Amino acid sequence: MPRYALLIEYDGTPFVGWQRQRDGLSVQGVLEEAAAPLNGGAEPVIGGAGRTDAGVHAEGQVAGVELLADLPPERVREALNTRTRPHPVSVLSVVRPPEGWNARFSALHRAYRYRILNRRARPGLEMGRVWHVPQPLDAAAMHEAAQGLLGHHDFSAFRAASCQARDALRTLDRLDVSREGEEVVVRVEARSFLHHQVRNMVGTLAQVGRGLRPVGWPRGVLDGRDRGRAGQTAPAEGLCFVSVRYEPGLEWTG
Amino acid sequence: MPRYALLIEYDGTPFVGWQRQRDGLSVQGVLEEAAAPLNGGAEPVIGGAGRTDAGVHAEGQVAGVELLADLPPERVREALNTRTRPHPVSVLSVVRPPEGWNARFSALHRAYRYRILNRRARPGLEMGRVWHVPQPLDAAAMHEAAQGLLGHHDFSAFRAASCQARDALRTLDRLDVSREGEEVVVRVEARSFLHHQVRNMVGTLAQVGRGLRPVGWPRGVLDGRDRGRAGQTAPAEGLCFVSVRYEPGLEWTG
Repeated sequence: MPRYALLIEYDGTPFVGWQRQRDGLSVQGVLEEAAAPLNGGAEPVIGGAGRTDAGVHAEGQVAGVELLADLPPERVREALNTRTRPHPVSVLSVVRPPEGWNARFSALHRAYRYRILNRRARPGLEMGRVWHVPQPLDAAAMHEAAQGLLGHHDFSAFRAASCQARDALRTLDRLDVSREGEEVVVRVEARSFLHHQVRNMVGTLAQVGRGLRPVGWPRGVLDGRDRGRAGQTAPAEGLCFVSVRYEPGLEWTG
Repeated sequence: MPRYALLIEYDGTPFVGWQRQRDGLSVQGVLEEAAAPLNGGAEPVIGGAGRTDAGVHAEGQVAGVELLADLPPERVREALNTRTRPHPVSVLSVVRPPEGWNARFSALHRAYRYRILNRRARPGLEMGRVWHVPQPLDAAAMHEAAQGLLGHHDFSAFRAASCQARDALRTLDRLDVSREGEEVVVRVEARSFLHHQVRNMVGTLAQVGRGLRPVGWPRGVLDGRDRGRAGQTAPAEGLCFVSVRYEPGLEWTG
């Protein structure tokens, strides 16, 4: 059966998350339902590169699917985008992946962005897209603190209780914090992440940004490997799954 | 009674527009209801600088209000932002305006931005924020065409049938079109606008962008003063009311 790779964008607000669940609207469910007519009427399984939580957005989620229909990839994209209306999910590109490619297991690198709206007034236009922190944040201190988390470590301290990964060893390649006007933006990259790892790191860095903890504290939390010592889990709505990188051979076309 | 000037941001999606109407949720209505406790329990009238239509957003709407309560302006802002929840409207700043100031009539200059998402795939993350035009647009041709509309003219050709202005003479100070990645962004400034003027100009320029009309066509439409000759009214969701300028004396504080 022909296999297709999908590049997908969505607003996570109305969804229970990427993954299908017993109840509620999932991104995966909306796409699988939309794909059924291309698969003899049966809903195919669409496997994503990352399982974003409820309220988390994506501008570059990637997924793979096998379909009975043998069509030019652009036709698959158009068919899916017609049938996912009116939900805020859009298939940006569809291509034929190389032999053996898997959206989740072939991923070499994942990038996320976390947006904090750092001003007194609560969000109006960007409600549901940002975490509102009304207290002034020192983005430079947050960035300095963040650099202590780079590299290969046991990230147990930043892992959700519900995390199903076998171990907590991960390699953090980037954790940049910068101020962009009224926002403090965190950009983070790694081959893979633990469940809630990004949100737990952001919540911990925010404590430093508010001046409640010293710059060296997040590294101490990491070394302690104890989730109870880290900061709060930053809310889902500030998080966006930006991109996934694979070996050459998968080239998106517009 | 103390007078206050408000700087306001909102996502226009859930609203029937700025102005109170017989039915439906309006930005003005939400703010007036939130302000009632500051006015002895009676809803005050909050007059805006511009009456944005249903679905139109604002990052810099300005409004004026008289309230019985004599409070530091920051307290008025905090009270309003607490009571407008959970609606996507936020008061960014409140200050005491100079004597005789009126949000609408004292405005010297208004700026709007119109976002067109110009790619094949429909919007996911930016649904409700952009006009989706799937056909390729030539932004440089649109910009060139736009320059023919600058200056003092009778804008009858770009005026809604419902427009209540006494005459159609307006002075257009800026109409810039530029490509920003997948978007074509139109930035427009004038002292004031006719109803639907921006959306009608954008719809007309889009015809040029698609290559359906020559660069000189929008100016010909303007000179014809006949609404029937212009392009479609571009949809509300791409439009955002960016800012209003007044005489010195009104300085927003964060």
